[in-house]
Amino acid sequence: MRLLEERIRQEARVLPGDILNVGSFLNQQVDPLLYDAIGQEFKRRFADTPVTRILTIEASGIGIACITGLYFKVPVVFGRKFRAKNVDSNVWTAEVTSYTHGVDYTVTVPRAFIKESDSILIIDDFLANGCALDGLVEIVSKAGARLAGAGIVIEKGFQNGGRRLREKGIRLESLAVIRSMSPETGISFG
Amino acid sequence: MRLLEERIRQEARVLPGDILNVGSFLNQQVDPLLYDAIGQEFKRRFADTPVTRILTIEASGIGIACITGLYFKVPVVFGRKFRAKNVDSNVWTAEVTSYTHGVDYTVTVPRAFIKESDSILIIDDFLANGCALDGLVEIVSKAGARLAGAGIVIEKGFQNGGRRLREKGIRLESLAVIRSMSPETGISFG
Repeated sequence: MRLLEERIRQEARVLPGDILNVGSFLNQQVDPLLYDAIGQEFKRRFADTPVTRILTIEASGIGIACITGLYFKVPVVFGRKFRAKNVDSNVWTAEVTSYTHGVDYTVTVPRAFIKESDSILIIDDFLANGCALDGLVEIVSKAGARLAGAGIVIEKGFQNGGRRLREKGIRLESLAVIRSMSPETGISFG
Repeated sequence: MRLLEERIRQEARVLPGDILNVGSFLNQQVDPLLYDAIGQEFKRRFADTPVTRILTIEASGIGIACITGLYFKVPVVFGRKFRAKNVDSNVWTAEVTSYTHGVDYTVTVPRAFIKESDSILIIDDFLANGCALDGLVEIVSKAGARLAGAGIVIEKGFQNGGRRLREKGIRLESLAVIRSMSPETGISFG
């Protein structure tokens, strides 16, 4: 998605430790018109498959998922992150190990919000090692719902999450795939 | 806002301890078309005042603020919540005491994202005691920006936050004001 790649080139900052700071337009501060273009693009890419509900994970995926929901005209559900493993029995849960933050957490979604008859589109802002996405995929599977696919805004193509998930047969649409990045040489896509 | 009040009447559940559960359409699970109507209504109510940036607080305000941002065509900034008081010097901070959860936290916004020349509209989903809103108002004040006002989706009118903030001269627009509620008698507006 050219508009997104241009914005990343112009405003993103590459920090040591493979961190891509997009805080000025994609999270912490958001350009809603860019979100709107992103939502429209997800709708275009997943136009050929039924979607009855969108699933994302708090917090930075929420805005993108809500605006994407405007185009699909379906409810948007947020997975919550908990440090505790002991949660109530009315929720679907999955354990997630976050390499970025070096902590484990449990993602939970109320059972009432994913039905067996659902066709779920997962939306998230970043895909790197794919641990958060694994958790959401596991929840869709536990609920017995169909997984329509996953729409990702920025995929770090040099990390293994994307390849691993595609090999599992998951339909993954990433709007910008970063091939390499470094504070010295900048960002290249593809 | 009649559409919102109707939805609250139909789907919200009043739980003991003055808790209004709107998880099936306003947070956790979201109806994006309702968010869209809410964003449009905030634009209508604040059409007479300049707004250069929208400020909200993670996590449940994010989706509403982003869709509201589509109507104002301005950047949306999220305040982050931290348990630690010791944060870096590039952020504006305010201490918040949450009566609901019985904990204190620090809300932070990068200084780069609120300028002295800004006219800030605060958006949040709930107003009860107004503690989170106090924090956001304090940050706008510290940044030397103008406060255009605050747009709230649901105000618990039987708690004191709304009155207190209006007495301080803050322009507050609440789309649904709950006068009273209880598990036995239900919800009344006004």
